[in-house]
This record gives sequence, structure tokens and C-alpha cells, in this order.
Amino acid sequence: MTRTVYLNGSYMAEHEATVSIFDRGFLMADGVYEVTSVLGGKLIDFDGHYKRLERSLGELEMANPTNYDDLLEVHRELVRVNEIDEGMIYLQVTRGNPGDRDFAFPPEETVPTIVLFTQSKPGLANSPAAQKGLKIISIEDQRWARRDIKTVQLLYPSLGKMAAKKAGADDAWMIEEGFVTEGTSNNAYIVKGNTIITRALSNDILHGITRAAVLRFAEEAQMQVEERNFTIDEARAADEAFVTSASTFVMPVVEIDGQAVGAGTPGAVSRRLREIYLEESLKAAI
Amino acid sequence: MTRTVYLNGSYMAEHEATVSIFDRGFLMADGVYEVTSVLGGKLIDFDGHYKRLERSLGELEMANPTNYDDLLEVHRELVRVNEIDEGMIYLQVTRGNPGDRDFAFPPEETVPTIVLFTQSKPGLANSPAAQKGLKIISIEDQRWARRDIKTVQLLYPSLGKMAAKKAGADDAWMIEEGFVTEGTSNNAYIVKGNTIITRALSNDILHGITRAAVLRFAEEAQMQVEERNFTIDEARAADEAFVTSASTFVMPVVEIDGQAVGAGTPGAVSRRLREIYLEESLKAAI
Repeated sequence: MTRTVYLNGSYMAEHEATVSIFDRGFLMADGVYEVTSVLGGKLIDFDGHYKRLERSLGELEMANPTNYDDLLEVHRELVRVNEIDEGMIYLQVTRGNPGDRDFAFPPEETVPTIVLFTQSKPGLANSPAAQKGLKIISIEDQRWARRDIKTVQLLYPSLGKMAAKKAGADDAWMIEEGFVTEGTSNNAYIVKGNTIITRALSNDILHGITRAAVLRFAEEAQMQVEERNFTIDEARAADEAFVTSASTFVMPVVEIDGQAVGAGTPGAVSRRLREIYLEESLKAAI
Repeated sequence: MTRTVYLNGSYMAEHEATVSIFDRGFLMADGVYEVTSVLGGKLIDFDGHYKRLERSLGELEMANPTNYDDLLEVHRELVRVNEIDEGMIYLQVTRGNPGDRDFAFPPEETVPTIVLFTQSKPGLANSPAAQKGLKIISIEDQRWARRDIKTVQLLYPSLGKMAAKKAGADDAWMIEEGFVTEGTSNNAYIVKGNTIITRALSNDILHGITRAAVLRFAEEAQMQVEERNFTIDEARAADEAFVTSASTFVMPVVEIDGQAVGAGTPGAVSRRLREIYLEESLKAAI
């Protein structure tokens, strides 16, 4: 089935959706994005993603080409026409097409580019990966300093995912000055006893929408949450490890750099958090 | 005049040149580029740019969609049809359009995207900026760790250029762990007596094609060259400062963070190096 995508105000077939070679997103990675999950045809935490989009745009002094209501309508229309039951909606905004290349920002009247497309992922909630758990490797964090802004500068995360693949693993955690920052496209956690440990928010990591929800649900379920740095050695010696992201929810990690974490199977806390997250998110989905 | 640009094997009007929204360059900054200057209708250091393109592609395990002879022919044809006397040719190669978004590299048969366009800059060699010199500010270097690969992850350099503009300056030098790395789109130098000082090559800076030529010409002209780190304080106290890049050649810096360098006018060494560079490059242009 040919997907219908949304580009600058119009719905069109996916192969017809193109941008100028002068688009700042193409020439300078001058763009931000969001990924919102769809479960049962409904949007998970749309409000959180919309707020973070606004923040990313603000940090880069980029105009917002949309608003909450219109963007919600586009998300829903794409879900409808593409018949998405489970999957994701990808959204990208760039500083637009000034008609030429220049490091300086284009004139203010330059219209931002906005594009959205769906990815159908039947079985996303009951993913076999969640039963099995992920194997991860650790790599140096070589990204730029503003990981709190969700930009399309994703070359290093992509290289990290490929390094993991070559090592026979599923993903990579990144290490900076001895401490884990996050995964290539997710936030990283370890569990010790009844305590969930994850790096505190700063410019060093993405302010995960799923992270915020999971920490809230964990506290509601009487689990302890410690927001602090941890090393990869501490992670290897932990009872459990997991990652969170909009498209994987809560995903257990069972192996780090070839060494089993805990029993080498998804841990009880990770599994419970995944259940709670899916249950609560589905209730709140719009 | 509408420019003719080159995209994936075809010449076309600039407004017709578009890429898929699924192009890896647009979604993930998964692309590299080169800028080659044109003087008197001829290409400056094409060989150097071609070699660096090959290196950037190799570092990212990206296929080379062209070869030396074909690429030279495309450069020359663009110069001819767009009647470029002085200016630049921009070249970008991305990992292509896999038809969807995934952090993992697409299948090997995915064809890279290659695009080239010209920028006409009459008076480039006799730029008024070179007579006046640049004012620069210093900013923290927040880029990723592999600046030796000429990728399109240019958001931070763009933000740096805008910070300079807001401060009433022309450009910014970036500082890492106390030492100057380079300018936002150029290599940085200071001059003390007859000695030219510039940071040594590593993954921390771009391996400038113009840098290599200028250092060679400097040594041929009996100047001393020291490749070592320097601080912004050392730069402010230097006799002269300058930058080099393919499109600005050798460009004097006359002010750093509001403080005059030397006499606050383009220095003798910088001016002499610019003359030599232009003279020698024109001789070798093809």
C-alpha cells in the first residue's frame, strides 16, 4: 500500500513527497523531529510530543509552522487514511528552503518545511523483542553538546546502531566521561532492588517523553527513582536494565558488552513497568 | 538567471531539483559535502577536494556514486552553463533514499544521492572583506567529535555564525578545553613574528584543502609553521590572525572578542599569504 504523507499543507502519495535540494534540513541538518506512537489507532502522549516540538523549535529560534489543533488533526488524518492500528507517526520541521545555501539563517519570511509520515508496525505493543530483551554494546558518546534539542543530526546514533549490529547486538549505550548518557534513540536505566536509576535531565540527554511518563508511573507504583549518573560497570552489575522511547515503550536490556544483566532475561521491574506504561498510555491515548 | 544544477545524473533548473523526504540526508544528516572555488572560470584544487570527498565517504562507509573524471566533467559543465567566472561549486553526497526511515544503514543497493550547484560570487578574489579583515568572537565548540569528516551536520556552525552576527561580528572561533579548534567554516591561524601557528590535524578539526596549500606555500616562502594548539588569549595577543577556507582563501582577522589583533588591520603575513595563495592556485587551476 502506498502511504499518504503530509508535506507543507498537502496530503500526497509518499513517492511524490520531495523537498528542494536547498532545504536547510537537507543542506545543514537544520531541523527537528518528533515520533509519536499509535496504539489501537490512537495517539500516545501527543501533548508531550507537541510541547517538546515547541521547545526544540524555540531553542533553535525556528518558527512553528503549525499549532496544537492543526497538528493533532494531521496526525489523526494520517492514521485514518493509512489505516494505522499500531505504529508511529514521524514529524519533521526544518528552517525551510531559502533558495540557496548560507550558514546564516534565511530571512524570517522563509517558510519552515513540515513533513509527517506514518510507519505501520503491527504487533508493536506485543513485540517479541520485549519478551527476549535487547543486547547492547557500549560506545563513546561523540555527539554534539545539545542532545536536549531533538535535531536531525542523527549520523552518530546511526553509526552507533550499525556498530551494535556488527557486534551481533541490538543497540548501543553511549558513554561520556565514564558515565552512560543514553541509548542511540532511547533513554537508559538500570534497576537495583526496588530502585530505578537513570541519568538526570540536562543538555547531555534527550528529555524523553516516555521517560517522564515511566518515572511518574514508577513512583505511583511505589518504586524508588534515583536520577543520577551511572557507569557501564554499574549497569553490568545491576539487577536489571532497560530503555524507554516513544516507539519501544519500556524495553528490557538483558546483555551489556557480552555480559548478562541479572539472570540474562527481562527482569520483573522492567516487565511490570512496560505493562503499566502500555496500560496507562492506552487509557490516556487520544 | 535560473541556475542549472546537477542531481543524480541529470542537469535541471534549480527549482526542479528535489529529493525525497526519505533521503538520508534530509532525515539523518547522513551526507558529506565539498565546496570548490572557481576563479577565472577554472577550478581551484579540484584534486584535493576529490580526495577529501573519497575520504569522508570512506569514513562513513558510504558508496562513491561518481569518479574523478566524471565529477570533473560535471564541475566544468556547471561552470560553463552557469557562466561562472568567480564563485563556488557545492557538492553533496548522501546515503540516498531507502524509501523509509531507519537508523540502520539502508541495503547496499540503495543508490547514493549526488547533487551539485554553483554560487556565482563576482569579485571573490578581490573581496572587500579581505581588505578590511574579519571581526570574530569566540564560542564554545559544541560539535560532534568527528570534525575531520565533512558532514552536513552544520547546525552548530550555523548557530555560531548567527551568534557572531548578533554580536556585530563576522564569524566565530570555537574553543574546546581552552584551545581554539577552528572557525565555523574555516581553519584558524595566528602569526607571531615570522611564525604561523595553527592547530595540528586530528579528528578535532577539518583537514582543510586550503590549509594544506597555504602551509605549503608558507614554507616555500621561508615562513616558519608551527602546528600546535593555541588559546584565544594567545590569539588576542598575536601580531596577526587569519582564517583559510576554499571560498575565502586567506582572510585576515583583525578583531577577536572586541579586541584589536596587532594594529587592528590586515597584517603583512596574512596579506602576503593571500597573494601567494591566489597566484599559485590560479596557476594550478584546471
